[in-house]
Amino acid sequence: MKIALAQLNYHIGNFESNMLKIISAAKKAQSLGAELVVFAELAISGYPPRDFLEFDDFIDRGEDAVLEIANQCKNIAVIVGVPIRNSAEKGKPLFNAAAFISNGNIKYAKKVLLPNYDVFDEYRYFEPAQEFEVIHFNGKRIALTICEDLWNIGNDPLYLLNPMDDLMGQKPDIMINIAASPFDYLQAKTRAEVLKKNVEKYRIPLIYVNHIGAQTELLFDGGSMVISADNQICMQLPFFLEDMQIIDTGNLQNLSKNIRPVIESSPIELIHDALVMGIKNYFEKLGFTKAILGLSGGIDSAVTLVLAAKALGTENVLGVLMPSQYSSDHSVDDALKLASNLGSPVKIIPIKELYNAFETQLEPEFKNLPFGLAEENIQARIRGVLLMALSNKFGYIVLNTSNKSEAAVGYGTLYGDMNGGLSVIGDVYKTQVFELARFINKDGEVIPENTITKPPSAELRPNQKDSDSLPDYEILDQILYQYIECRKGPKELVMMGFDEGVVNRVLKLVNTNEYKRHQTPPILRISPKAFGTGRRMPIVAKYLS
Amino acid sequence: MKIALAQLNYHIGNFESNMLKIISAAKKAQSLGAELVVFAELAISGYPPRDFLEFDDFIDRGEDAVLEIANQCKNIAVIVGVPIRNSAEKGKPLFNAAAFISNGNIKYAKKVLLPNYDVFDEYRYFEPAQEFEVIHFNGKRIALTICEDLWNIGNDPLYLLNPMDDLMGQKPDIMINIAASPFDYLQAKTRAEVLKKNVEKYRIPLIYVNHIGAQTELLFDGGSMVISADNQICMQLPFFLEDMQIIDTGNLQNLSKNIRPVIESSPIELIHDALVMGIKNYFEKLGFTKAILGLSGGIDSAVTLVLAAKALGTENVLGVLMPSQYSSDHSVDDALKLASNLGSPVKIIPIKELYNAFETQLEPEFKNLPFGLAEENIQARIRGVLLMALSNKFGYIVLNTSNKSEAAVGYGTLYGDMNGGLSVIGDVYKTQVFELARFINKDGEVIPENTITKPPSAELRPNQKDSDSLPDYEILDQILYQYIECRKGPKELVMMGFDEGVVNRVLKLVNTNEYKRHQTPPILRISPKAFGTGRRMPIVAKYLS
Repeated sequence: MKIALAQLNYHIGNFESNMLKIISAAKKAQSLGAELVVFAELAISGYPPRDFLEFDDFIDRGEDAVLEIANQCKNIAVIVGVPIRNSAEKGKPLFNAAAFISNGNIKYAKKVLLPNYDVFDEYRYFEPAQEFEVIHFNGKRIALTICEDLWNIGNDPLYLLNPMDDLMGQKPDIMINIAASPFDYLQAKTRAEVLKKNVEKYRIPLIYVNHIGAQTELLFDGGSMVISADNQICMQLPFFLEDMQIIDTGNLQNLSKNIRPVIESSPIELIHDALVMGIKNYFEKLGFTKAILGLSGGIDSAVTLVLAAKALGTENVLGVLMPSQYSSDHSVDDALKLASNLGSPVKIIPIKELYNAFETQLEPEFKNLPFGLAEENIQARIRGVLLMALSNKFGYIVLNTSNKSEAAVGYGTLYGDMNGGLSVIGDVYKTQVFELARFINKDGEVIPENTITKPPSAELRPNQKDSDSLPDYEILDQILYQYIECRKGPKELVMMGFDEGVVNRVLKLVNTNEYKRHQTPPILRISPKAFGTGRRMPIVAKYLS
Repeated sequence: MKIALAQLNYHIGNFESNMLKIISAAKKAQSLGAELVVFAELAISGYPPRDFLEFDDFIDRGEDAVLEIANQCKNIAVIVGVPIRNSAEKGKPLFNAAAFISNGNIKYAKKVLLPNYDVFDEYRYFEPAQEFEVIHFNGKRIALTICEDLWNIGNDPLYLLNPMDDLMGQKPDIMINIAASPFDYLQAKTRAEVLKKNVEKYRIPLIYVNHIGAQTELLFDGGSMVISADNQICMQLPFFLEDMQIIDTGNLQNLSKNIRPVIESSPIELIHDALVMGIKNYFEKLGFTKAILGLSGGIDSAVTLVLAAKALGTENVLGVLMPSQYSSDHSVDDALKLASNLGSPVKIIPIKELYNAFETQLEPEFKNLPFGLAEENIQARIRGVLLMALSNKFGYIVLNTSNKSEAAVGYGTLYGDMNGGLSVIGDVYKTQVFELARFINKDGEVIPENTITKPPSAELRPNQKDSDSLPDYEILDQILYQYIECRKGPKELVMMGFDEGVVNRVLKLVNTNEYKRHQTPPILRISPKAFGTGRRMPIVAKYLS
């Protein structure tokens, strides 16, 4: 049987556009001889639709789209994800379903295992299905499942059920799994392992179709694939790109012999590509074309500028230098050199006069109190006001340039440098930002060497360095990784060899700065545990703080 | 049997303080003759602990606290909520449990029905229990359940199971339910109805113990109660206050005869009391004492100031007037009159000079472009910088004064008047803000009459009025309520009689301003559907927008 894998970029709630994309791909697949075309999980609504699922109108539009697809695609069968109503008297009101559309008939397979951890909230909306039925099509029996349904395998089972165990009783010839499996820098490897474990267990081929594209913070990398019954990945679609490929299920072993080995990208290369896609889709899907950001001469804004230039075009990313009396000479030089290397536009707007105006206006209140955090933050906030003024006047989206280490310990000014429509590197630790800079420079200097080698500084008071207030990033990032990604507590961290005083100080900083992170822009998620939707912490609490 | 109901205010993650509070109340109950004392759901950890539950260290501390309580309370039995580990090989790692502690022995009842909607994420952490066992104590059989376990009753059942149906097979004498049931202005009524439906069905008495106190946005109102087998509420603990009461289960019918009818507060009175508690607890639990806010002479900041003064003491709430060239005379007069009525401190910091400084600095960019949104927002952002400067310098928390109508349609300036550590009235529609003002003034003018009667205006350009950009609040709030609280779509709204053009415009404003709400402070939740944790919407989407 000839099956097309359609790996597309959908837009949440944009039923019209998603449906046209699906119908157009189905017609193309049909013209290329495919009998069946497979689209991703909840392709019709986009993923994740979140609380739009609570609107009857939203569910109606999905149903209408399925009917229209059935109406338009008569000579090819279609598998496509869509939310549908649960008609039972009890339980959640919806199912996360895969519509199987053939000759105007529509059947549904429903998701059984509903991820409800990290960024996932599926149990908020959906009832887990309790019935399992293979689909008969052109002489084959298809075990059709949805994403997580294949993930309850291995040593850490989250669920009591395993839908494929039941479906195997109906002797399927092939597994098809439609997914919405977001990227992180470990996920492509994990995903391939999980899928191969299924083929190893059930010994029939597997066709897997994922999303690509960014939905605010969630980045979908694609990597749709076909695994033959002898457990070889015999086709893999590209990462971060739309694509459609057709395979013949009768010819998978031969395909296996001819397949190029999947190129193993380094984590940093994956992160780089994911972030570029994340910026690009954020702007496209919101209908914006131009970005603006503050250029400090430091490495965070430099990396953000380069990524944005790749995503939006160099000419569409405006870097603004806003030196104060505490800015070093090299900060301006390094920023200008970066813009000149890239060929990107810059503006310089000094903030000294504005800072003095605030000082004057606040003098009756501040009197002779010493210079401190308030004065530092005023500088960062003046810059925030200036960027937002240009954004409002000329239609730029402000890009936030905070990294994950800073965001973790609250080393940033709320309503100042923490501003922005999108945080580009807010899930990238400072040490990884350095790696990204080196990766960007691999074929020649784009980011000035001095930006990479000089000691990081916020430059909000004379001779300030990050290391005045924070442990060295090499240590800090390790502690943060163990605490945030691995959920290690203070005792475990000390047992790993970290200094107890440093551990307690860092954990306290992380926990007491939850209120700041609550108000930050969405952060492009590239790690298994990013700040944002996937990490939900109380603000008012007293734990390790 | 003499049972004490202990309705207390816990602090998330503060095991030491929660445990001491529990032990101290248990000892007091014992001294008053109680055989058993009942505390609320997850009292030991505080509720909701959110992703702290993913830390082994956090679960260990809960276990340690249970052991310490068992050690300290030998002559009284204790029921108290705590997260515990799931030792099974499959499923989620934790249970939401009620520890029954008696004579140093510990048994656990585990929650079966896990709310996973609105503000609740319990399926993120907990495995639903599958076993049901009554607890034998002093000759009685207790059916011990946790909050939602009693809520699958009535016409809209969310779950397939009903734990009390199973427990009734073991012939319990009494139901005890420990809860963490947050306030909204309808919840006290709904809660009493649900609990009475259980007694009606199972015909045994019910003891119900809830939290009081605020945990960031979630407000717990208490209202713990006892219902006799003949379905009379024979004791109700106060709303918004800590309390402990002891009842004799052998004497409930007599108690019923003597009970004062529960005073029915109006929704506005409940909202008022809830917001005051919300402010008070936010500050106390974070260790702050002083608030600052911008006073515009308008009704939103006036109501916020009064509520804050009630929560923190008049002298601890500083109102700052920051008039611009577009501020009307009455704005300053009305704000000063309010402060004078209250006796609260004020400062005046004009922003004209600062605004001119920005105008000058931006002149090379803005050139001769007409005055517009950018210039309006600069004024709001200057005010934001000033309040934050005073906050940083003197240790105030900035209170946000945006109302729900504004927050819904994006009528506010990000990094300007949308700033703050806490949004006090962000879940209160503008028309409800007027009701609150009238309620505050019920015994004499606190909020100046002119503040209530003048047309609302942002005063960011000459002669601006809210009604220039928005439908009248009477219409707007009705549409917003139907869309946000009731999840009605555009077709349903038009069928209800609202103008189609207005409906489409309002819904588009709500949906396209999701990016702003993503970055706002936590909002005290007083309605069944507040912005924040309980309403999760995509930012990058194209639906009704």
